[in-house]
Amino acid sequence: MVCAMTENSLFADRNAIDASIEETAEFAPKFDAAGLIPAAVTDAATGQFLMLAYMNAEALSKTLLTGDAWYWSRSRQKLWRKGESSGNSQSVREIRTDCDQDAILLVVDQSGPACHTNRRSCFYRIVESSEAGAVLKFS
Amino acid sequence: MVCAMTENSLFADRNAIDASIEETAEFAPKFDAAGLIPAAVTDAATGQFLMLAYMNAEALSKTLLTGDAWYWSRSRQKLWRKGESSGNSQSVREIRTDCDQDAILLVVDQSGPACHTNRRSCFYRIVESSEAGAVLKFS
Repeated sequence: MVCAMTENSLFADRNAIDASIEETAEFAPKFDAAGLIPAAVTDAATGQFLMLAYMNAEALSKTLLTGDAWYWSRSRQKLWRKGESSGNSQSVREIRTDCDQDAILLVVDQSGPACHTNRRSCFYRIVESSEAGAVLKFS
Repeated sequence: MVCAMTENSLFADRNAIDASIEETAEFAPKFDAAGLIPAAVTDAATGQFLMLAYMNAEALSKTLLTGDAWYWSRSRQKLWRKGESSGNSQSVREIRTDCDQDAILLVVDQSGPACHTNRRSCFYRIVESSEAGAVLKFS
């Protein structure tokens, strides 16, 4: 019987994988004690680093199932679809995970600015060292 | 008197900033409950996304002061300089922070592979959805 993919069946059990976590083809993401995994986001068109956010299992599942980027807001303690209020949504071109499967990389088509300050990327400040300490330079 | 920059004096107090955290030129990174901040790392030469790791205040300070990338290993519970055992060090070209100052982006000259599996990037697997669930494809 072919079953439709559901949110609960997407991930493998990390403890039941035969191969090492680095070499397995099974997707067994590791969520931290708060149930979250960090997701770095880059622009498919330019390669620019856009933002870093967090997903819980439901956000990651929804992202995989819908092709839109979903995150967990730690400040608002709620699931959100990127762009649901701003309109600046992210259509996911590729999802990657790392060697330890404890981080996610999303390559997206970004509609409008990714940052809530209306800048294209959230990383618009360079940290520069001086004798007085570290300061930020807008770029 | 001009004082040499020390590790303790690098960061501003988040609670003492007049401007919003998004618009200030003061560097006041936010460390989580475990004292860590995530650091995404990209390749200065190619733009490739290499890895995601964590820094505590000491690792971030050492990175700023030395120009080499330092991290905090959560599994080994120790500070480490990238490449100290593998030789695959990272010379930091640029450090950025994001709107909320709760994430770091390092743009580095990567010597050799960034990943402990000897691959250039840790993100060598693409997550693909299928009816049976999500699986990983090596790339």
